[in-house]
Amino acid sequence: MSARLGENRYSEAGIRLLKLNRLGDRHELRDLTVDVSFEGDFETSHTRGDNARILPTHTMRNTVYSIARDRASGDIEKFALALTQHFLEQNPQVRTVYVRVAEEQWTRVSIAGRPHGCAFSRGGLERRTALVERSAARLIVESGLEGLRLVKTRNAAFVGFLRDRFTTLPESGDGMLATELNARWRYGWSEVPFGPQWQQVRQVLLETFAEHDSRSLQHTLFTMASAALEQCPPLSEIRLRLPAFHPVLVDLSPFAMENHEVFIPGEVPHSVAEAVVRRDEMAG
Amino acid sequence: MSARLGENRYSEAGIRLLKLNRLGDRHELRDLTVDVSFEGDFETSHTRGDNARILPTHTMRNTVYSIARDRASGDIEKFALALTQHFLEQNPQVRTVYVRVAEEQWTRVSIAGRPHGCAFSRGGLERRTALVERSAARLIVESGLEGLRLVKTRNAAFVGFLRDRFTTLPESGDGMLATELNARWRYGWSEVPFGPQWQQVRQVLLETFAEHDSRSLQHTLFTMASAALEQCPPLSEIRLRLPAFHPVLVDLSPFAMENHEVFIPGEVPHSVAEAVVRRDEMAG
Amino acid sequence: MSARLGENRYSEAGIRLLKLNRLGDRHELRDLTVDVSFEGDFETSHTRGDNARILPTHTMRNTVYSIARDRASGDIEKFALALTQHFLEQNPQVRTVYVRVAEEQWTRVSIAGRPHGCAFSRGGLERRTALVERSAARLIVESGLEGLRLVKTRNAAFVGFLRDRFTTLPESGDGMLATELNARWRYGWSEVPFGPQWQQVRQVLLETFAEHDSRSLQHTLFTMASAALEQCPPLSEIRLRLPAFHPVLVDLSPFAMENHEVFIPGEVPHSVAEAVVRRDEMAG
Amino acid sequence: MSARLGENRYSEAGIRLLKLNRLGDRHELRDLTVDVSFEGDFETSHTRGDNARILPTHTMRNTVYSIARDRASGDIEKFALALTQHFLEQNPQVRTVYVRVAEEQWTRVSIAGRPHGCAFSRGGLERRTALVERSAARLIVESGLEGLRLVKTRNAAFVGFLRDRFTTLPESGDGMLATELNARWRYGWSEVPFGPQWQQVRQVLLETFAEHDSRSLQHTLFTMASAALEQCPPLSEIRLRLPAFHPVLVDLSPFAMENHEVFIPGEVPHSVAEAVVRRDEMAG
Repeated sequence: MSARLGENRYSEAGIRLLKLNRLGDRHELRDLTVDVSFEGDFETSHTRGDNARILPTHTMRNTVYSIARDRASGDIEKFALALTQHFLEQNPQVRTVYVRVAEEQWTRVSIAGRPHGCAFSRGGLERRTALVERSAARLIVESGLEGLRLVKTRNAAFVGFLRDRFTTLPESGDGMLATELNARWRYGWSEVPFGPQWQQVRQVLLETFAEHDSRSLQHTLFTMASAALEQCPPLSEIRLRLPAFHPVLVDLSPFAMENHEVFIPGEVPHSVAEAVVRRDEMAG
Repeated sequence: MSARLGENRYSEAGIRLLKLNRLGDRHELRDLTVDVSFEGDFETSHTRGDNARILPTHTMRNTVYSIARDRASGDIEKFALALTQHFLEQNPQVRTVYVRVAEEQWTRVSIAGRPHGCAFSRGGLERRTALVERSAARLIVESGLEGLRLVKTRNAAFVGFLRDRFTTLPESGDGMLATELNARWRYGWSEVPFGPQWQQVRQVLLETFAEHDSRSLQHTLFTMASAALEQCPPLSEIRLRLPAFHPVLVDLSPFAMENHEVFIPGEVPHSVAEAVVRRDEMAG
Repeated sequence: MSARLGENRYSEAGIRLLKLNRLGDRHELRDLTVDVSFEGDFETSHTRGDNARILPTHTMRNTVYSIARDRASGDIEKFALALTQHFLEQNPQVRTVYVRVAEEQWTRVSIAGRPHGCAFSRGGLERRTALVERSAARLIVESGLEGLRLVKTRNAAFVGFLRDRFTTLPESGDGMLATELNARWRYGWSEVPFGPQWQQVRQVLLETFAEHDSRSLQHTLFTMASAALEQCPPLSEIRLRLPAFHPVLVDLSPFAMENHEVFIPGEVPHSVAEAVVRRDEMAG
Repeated sequence: MSARLGENRYSEAGIRLLKLNRLGDRHELRDLTVDVSFEGDFETSHTRGDNARILPTHTMRNTVYSIARDRASGDIEKFALALTQHFLEQNPQVRTVYVRVAEEQWTRVSIAGRPHGCAFSRGGLERRTALVERSAARLIVESGLEGLRLVKTRNAAFVGFLRDRFTTLPESGDGMLATELNARWRYGWSEVPFGPQWQQVRQVLLETFAEHDSRSLQHTLFTMASAALEQCPPLSEIRLRLPAFHPVLVDLSPFAMENHEVFIPGEVPHSVAEAVVRRDEMAG
């Protein structure tokens, strides 16, 4: 046999669950998607088809549902922490457990201006996320958000860029910046009030996006990330991924019309900027 | 030749546009998708490839962008009315024009509790729609909404249904009703304040969904539709389509756990109820 | 109450099933999706929440699975016929039953040039469809196909079309025609060898698409439809829907390059032509 | 400023193109999607909004189209090699260029059993892929395929697995294995006949999937990967990702029917096995 197994993992992905809390007439509803991955000593399952060390993904799923009953009502980071703890303690054959939880938003239906106790409508495309990686040696907790579509219609320039023979893009002193915010940040310590902290990071990211004078997608990315690090002390690093849509002004000149206001929105993001920004301990 | 052309139409579908209004520091952003369809005398284009009566769909698209510059800022019903009027007047070969406009929601980013003038985030999956059908003989205006996911976690029963040898569904005295609201209503007259009227119909539909005791999907549909007709006089009829998702309680009994709160959400809607409900003039 | 129930139906949509036939070492695999709809006397279920005439959609689903065991191995038209017969006979409250079956393609994996007995790979995006409508008074059987993406790179012109002030499209003497074939045809009698007939109609449609000189999307549509009617006697009518993608030549002139061969494919179809073509009995 | 830029890159993703070669009456059609990513010295663009080192993604796109005119007709690996070479040579500020090319399948329409010269239909969901990473110091060429849905209906067991209190999965001696093949392999040297080699690896993977007795998803993965390494000498490593769908037998026992043949196909893959397998030089 001339083949050797390298890095490997197996997972149960996309475990969907609704968790309902009935607090009298007021219900709470959580809509979660959980992914569980194991890395560890699975050599013989690959090479000899010996499943003695394989906990079935079907069991992972059962476990998530069972633990959800008591632990899925609070912060998703805590639910992910509980799941990784369970899986690592019960499975010595596993070296590292990864659990990711994504939460869809549901908001209460408003009746005569007051939120209803048990009727909900689905929020936007944005999801709150948590990712926990746990092994005997280390524990990493990340929070994030993804899928939040943003547009700013002022203070977005792109000038002074490198040109070569294939460059036809004109410089733009004040255009529209349309992107989708995907962020993931890591905490420097593990005792964090996850909910309020998530709200604060999100708010800083949105405010910085709205307020700053963008000179490029990269500039916006770094400015947002640094603001989050500066204003949110528990963060040790933050990773942003910004796919950009490029709305294009429709050319109405064939019809003798000026146009500064009707755009074709880009449906598919093309440009993507991604980077991690870390707290600079030296600079402290 | 033994073939005869029957009903036919051609269309330009999915014309996407952003309309930006710059009112000083406060910008307004509209995100619209327009479909245009023509029915008329297109026999020879089919049978002989004679295009003399075919206005290209490419021209439809140009026209929508051009007219959008001045007309896309108000109610989408009015934009659709302007488009159908243009197309019908300019094209005698066309018998009927259909224009559909769907509007995506964007909401202002909130900074320190105040809405920002030129930064927006994408709202939910819900779209507001308008559909205008216009010919020399008639003009129909419909408004609607689609894609609004709703859940009620109380007051949803399904009992007393017909049973046969293939029935295994248990009766449910109080379950969860998860659906997606798709509604389209027709106005009995054409001078309607479309925006406020749309808000009112939407609010009546949501309140009825939240408040009523549902005995079935059909019962919910009819109750919502009748409430809209009763409380919104300009409506002459309303058509609802309610695909239902069926969240299923996870069976945790193998693990000696009771479970009344962890559900597997149905990802794909299976049951669908659809009906039109009309104002009963006789009953007046 | 001033509201009156109009047209209404309810459905169980998207019933997915795999049917496996084990013929010794040679297995057969069918991948079907079934939709069932009922129209009938459901007034009181809407108006009073009385479910006594409502066969649950859950039961429809159970029934489809049960009948699939013995009837899902042959032509999908026959499976749909069996299902409509069952539902109509067993449910006097139902006036009309609609059953639609769509079949995904799986092809045998080829080993050393020979098809394997029990390993399959998924075919293309094309689906074969059957639609049966059955009431006491009538029985309609339709076959079809959908989702078949086609391109012809020659013999596709579009000239002589109507021009107005918003027309900028140049005439094109020989371009590329990219579309998606969606076809549905009706049989004039019910004893038809459905499988061979489906193959024949499909082949006539494809050959006509490939061979004819297209003068427009409408011209292609009608030519394909007439060819099917002429060459396939059991067909009484055929309905085509052709959404067109418009590949656009990239403009490389800024780089002093001629370009007749690199295109940006349209990702979303914009133009759509649709029509029904019927056998002209008079012309016989 | 307490923030420090870490790993970063920017990209133009999803550049879609059709390349048409007109060889007399016989045309050739390629359908490609290209992604280009740059890593390099972009610190000041992030921190100061200085774009002097940023080649716009719009230029990347223009460049891909321009180079496609002469280089997109052969193996996609060679196209990716040409693109990376251009970008690296022309851009000293760039340290590493990544180019990924994915190819959709189009097959010739068959007329009277003969392939047509200029009419094509879209093949399956499978895509052929190439990925080239190039810097001054290294050049990596990977080929692959993705999205190939496979089912085997025999010789797929899963027994002897680890059990805990949450395990309810029964052992299965002979079930159905449904997966999607995603593979990527690296060549040990750069002069490879990419097209024939791709065909050979694909064929070995399919044959092994079809023929071997699977004891688990991991076992299938490793057996496929080792076979590819053994039979295809240019490969130095191969990486497989196998999401598994779990078709479930419908329970017809409530209707007094046995069922071994009607399954509910899993629509969403849940289990996923992924691993890299390398040629073991020691074992040589």
